[in-house]
Amino acid sequence: MGTTQTTKDLYPSRVKSRPEILERQDPVLYSEGTSGSLAKEQADFYRDNGYLFLENFFSPEETEQLRRELRSIWEEGAHADRPEVIREPNSDVVRSVFAVHRDYAAFHALATSEKLRGIVRYILGSDVYIHQSRINFKPGFIGKEFYWHSDFETWHVEDGMPRMRALSCSIALEDNFHYNGPLMVIPGSQNHYVACVGETPDENYKNSLRKQEYGTPDDESMKWLVEQGGIDTPTGQKGSVLLFDCNIMHGSASNISPFPRSNVFFVFNSVENQLAEPFSGKKPRPEYIAHRDTII
Amino acid sequence: MGTTQTTKDLYPSRVKSRPEILERQDPVLYSEGTSGSLAKEQADFYRDNGYLFLENFFSPEETEQLRRELRSIWEEGAHADRPEVIREPNSDVVRSVFAVHRDYAAFHALATSEKLRGIVRYILGSDVYIHQSRINFKPGFIGKEFYWHSDFETWHVEDGMPRMRALSCSIALEDNFHYNGPLMVIPGSQNHYVACVGETPDENYKNSLRKQEYGTPDDESMKWLVEQGGIDTPTGQKGSVLLFDCNIMHGSASNISPFPRSNVFFVFNSVENQLAEPFSGKKPRPEYIAHRDTII
Repeated sequence: MGTTQTTKDLYPSRVKSRPEILERQDPVLYSEGTSGSLAKEQADFYRDNGYLFLENFFSPEETEQLRRELRSIWEEGAHADRPEVIREPNSDVVRSVFAVHRDYAAFHALATSEKLRGIVRYILGSDVYIHQSRINFKPGFIGKEFYWHSDFETWHVEDGMPRMRALSCSIALEDNFHYNGPLMVIPGSQNHYVACVGETPDENYKNSLRKQEYGTPDDESMKWLVEQGGIDTPTGQKGSVLLFDCNIMHGSASNISPFPRSNVFFVFNSVENQLAEPFSGKKPRPEYIAHRDTII
Repeated sequence: MGTTQTTKDLYPSRVKSRPEILERQDPVLYSEGTSGSLAKEQADFYRDNGYLFLENFFSPEETEQLRRELRSIWEEGAHADRPEVIREPNSDVVRSVFAVHRDYAAFHALATSEKLRGIVRYILGSDVYIHQSRINFKPGFIGKEFYWHSDFETWHVEDGMPRMRALSCSIALEDNFHYNGPLMVIPGSQNHYVACVGETPDENYKNSLRKQEYGTPDDESMKWLVEQGGIDTPTGQKGSVLLFDCNIMHGSASNISPFPRSNVFFVFNSVENQLAEPFSGKKPRPEYIAHRDTII
């Protein structure tokens, strides 16, 4: 169950009345020397930019199998009444399904595959486990925007993740274009931590998974980050993989195109960075959103 | 004051309970042979795709002067109490100012400049006048999406524009990127008219949040149009001009980037296509939104 609340809060957020930019206290790339699966240029790119796009990482056959699984989960989700299934604001359309690595064999296999884990262990410099997994269904026509955020800010404040030693892996299950609401990242922003204003309400996750209101960076900090690093929108064919640091600032615009933008999303955390009590002092979020159990 | 309501409705919309795609009855390009200011390839591109992007059409000096005018109108608008000034839904921030070609010398000069009008007269094959003009202030961070629509559908139904013989000219006063909510167009869609479904019946009133609004194309028609033509997002530096046909399907996603996307917007209509009574049978919209006076 991790360490106790005596863990020092290196990244305080949602405690002051003015936003603040703090410097990162942790490495981005935890290994040096060669890796079996990442070229030096790729590792350097990840360290400097906070993300790495791996085009056609999965074969068309592997991708097609995942797409079949996704469709079947989406169909099942339409009638499901369980907390892992999140719906769009203002409608019953399924937006996300959590804990898919736990509940579905195909996604369990994917989350534990050496092909992915080898790279992740290299970047994080240790064994890893799944902190969170989900499938996102971003439908065509009505796909809503996700405002800018650092995932780590939430995982730190609401889940008690002590250090920046985690990353996200997004596997595209549809082709991504610049016009169907792809993920936008701010290169270099992983090195700066935007301490946000405002207190976290109780059970914030019940609303924030639909629409985030707390842990939102202020305009001045956002301008500064974009002045430093610009905005990248890595796009490519289905089967591509985007790895990005837990603290990189990212978001996505709405999607009015007819093209959906579904993906599988795994968060890997270092086993040396297990969750403490949430730094908000509130109750931890449920296990299906932030696994305290490190076995997978 | 245009013709009377006996004008035949070639493009009925908002009258049937099912959407329908009608073929265009009018040319896109009304001139043949050479034009002084458009190359043949440009004219052909406009005819086939329904739009034309003219990068760096205005010099940096001309653009900077327009930007100064824009800022001064924006500041003046903050305290203005007149219908031409439209504000953001939940604040006093100015969103658009209409009829700028009528009320401000710099925009009058721009709207009547031979540099623009020469091209527009060539495309529309006649003398032209301003049907509508406005400045749009699209802020960073909170720029809202505009869902897909054909301008002609509205101008026909609500303003009584009889035929497709008009075009829009959007002058970028900020750099446009693919990530700050640029205009998206569907090439070729100018040749098809999506007749939208009628007024929401009384009994469905309670569902109005999720209900399609007036003049909104249905998903099946949108899929078909995008299958035919794809999606283009012409982007470029400030001072660029985008010309697009009155019936091309277009829209824009939200803008969460820090970069605003202000522009000047002129609609030119052929003097041979003057407004009749609105085909909706309703009262015409006010003069500052749809000029019935054709003198400028």
